[in-house]
Amino acid sequence: MPSRTARRKVLRITLDGPGPGDITPRADFLAAEEPLGIRVNGQALAITMRTPGDDTELAAGFLTGEAVVRSPADITGIRLCDGTTCGHGGHEGMGNIADVTLAAGVTVAPGARRDFLTSSACGICGKTSVHDICVLPRAPLAQDATRFDPGVLAALPDRLRDAQRVFSRTGGLHAAGLFTAGGDLVAVREDVGRHNAVDKIVGWALLAGRLPLAGCVLLVSGRASFELVQKAVLAGIPLLAAVSAPSSLAVDLAEEAGLTLVGFLRGPTMNVYAGAHRLTA
Amino acid sequence: MPSRTARRKVLRITLDGPGPGDITPRADFLAAEEPLGIRVNGQALAITMRTPGDDTELAAGFLTGEAVVRSPADITGIRLCDGTTCGHGGHEGMGNIADVTLAAGVTVAPGARRDFLTSSACGICGKTSVHDICVLPRAPLAQDATRFDPGVLAALPDRLRDAQRVFSRTGGLHAAGLFTAGGDLVAVREDVGRHNAVDKIVGWALLAGRLPLAGCVLLVSGRASFELVQKAVLAGIPLLAAVSAPSSLAVDLAEEAGLTLVGFLRGPTMNVYAGAHRLTA
Repeated sequence: MPSRTARRKVLRITLDGPGPGDITPRADFLAAEEPLGIRVNGQALAITMRTPGDDTELAAGFLTGEAVVRSPADITGIRLCDGTTCGHGGHEGMGNIADVTLAAGVTVAPGARRDFLTSSACGICGKTSVHDICVLPRAPLAQDATRFDPGVLAALPDRLRDAQRVFSRTGGLHAAGLFTAGGDLVAVREDVGRHNAVDKIVGWALLAGRLPLAGCVLLVSGRASFELVQKAVLAGIPLLAAVSAPSSLAVDLAEEAGLTLVGFLRGPTMNVYAGAHRLTA
Repeated sequence: MPSRTARRKVLRITLDGPGPGDITPRADFLAAEEPLGIRVNGQALAITMRTPGDDTELAAGFLTGEAVVRSPADITGIRLCDGTTCGHGGHEGMGNIADVTLAAGVTVAPGARRDFLTSSACGICGKTSVHDICVLPRAPLAQDATRFDPGVLAALPDRLRDAQRVFSRTGGLHAAGLFTAGGDLVAVREDVGRHNAVDKIVGWALLAGRLPLAGCVLLVSGRASFELVQKAVLAGIPLLAAVSAPSSLAVDLAEEAGLTLVGFLRGPTMNVYAGAHRLTA
């Protein structure tokens, strides 16, 4: 199995040190980035540049975020093909394939986002709202009546950082953490891609039969984009918090879907962009 | 034309203020995020979630980074379809299409990355090196003998921040800045997607007949991924600098392609991961 970190030689340049332009060769740990191909029933669906590890969960979470699957029974198997087992042979471990087999009747529907994206029609021009450009949420988020204490939320960024295993070593990974409403850490995943980190969380929950993630908080280390909101909504998560800013479309989708969206969560201060009714004041 | 920022209502919560849980409603400017569909000769090629603005350059830069085009003559026209001009009608400005027409003989080749990505073959398993999973660089980067002064590089992050128009207002945008070897700013672009910010720079240069960008520095506000290295190489940029960490694959590709890769560029300290011969010591 490929490693999550990779060692590379580096020249460290320090201009304000004792000497004029101090140059020190050393070895650095970097976040590993490698391609993962996701195949469904033998057909290539997508490729993602990811940090190796939790690849089964990544594939399952990706398919959840594309609204292809919604329960563990929708997937009958996920086989990681590392070149020695898939029968294709001839490579040297540069990449991986996750071979997903869906249950009978579960298909990559013509209405799924992947097909929309590759349609040759003027796919966006005819659209009139956020609804039309995203996968419709199937989880009834509006019914999640959990309330969240801002004081509990304020403590989560530190908890996420404490739980990160790789970040402090490489400085190059995004993290996603799943917490209970009481602030207990349920799961944490890291990746060079922030979407992948969320997919790994959601895929873990799907395979563990824990979807929808009612009453939970998903905290991401970076910004909140449209896609991250969509992934949270499809996983039935009522509150998405980001350490940095949301985009306009992230806020619009959160409002439409009934998601509580918190941005700039940095200790004792935070901004609530949507779904403020879930916060205890 | 859609705006680069969008105003949204927000509740600002301050737990360490004078009152217990101070909550202030206010209006916040967010980075606008909207879909842009890129069509080539009438066929949909890709969709990207981007911050509106410089969309012609974004489409041109995207096609450069996919190795579809390499000179301004390869593109005979780029038409932005905002719904009132493309004849599809019926929408409310939610998204945009960039309709690109290529010169005769310029095609999205079967070997181009897009086709590889959607191939139903075991596209990665058979690959043996970084070369096989990326678009081959056409620019002879190794021949770029420009040398760069670390003292000049050290000043670039501040210059990039000074030049950013939107970031300070929203906190949600990635920036890419193009500089001369002497440290003069040539161009700066911002976007919710860091790949888009680089595509906008490269597309601007392509359309202005300035490719390859020999002797230039590209500085990105975040991390350096495999894809950003690939975009720099295809644009003929000899030095890519990032404020944060590179990934393992970014370093490997930089070494293979002859690109100088600097990471953690934070004022007087920086790490050189590849191509150190271009730095004056």
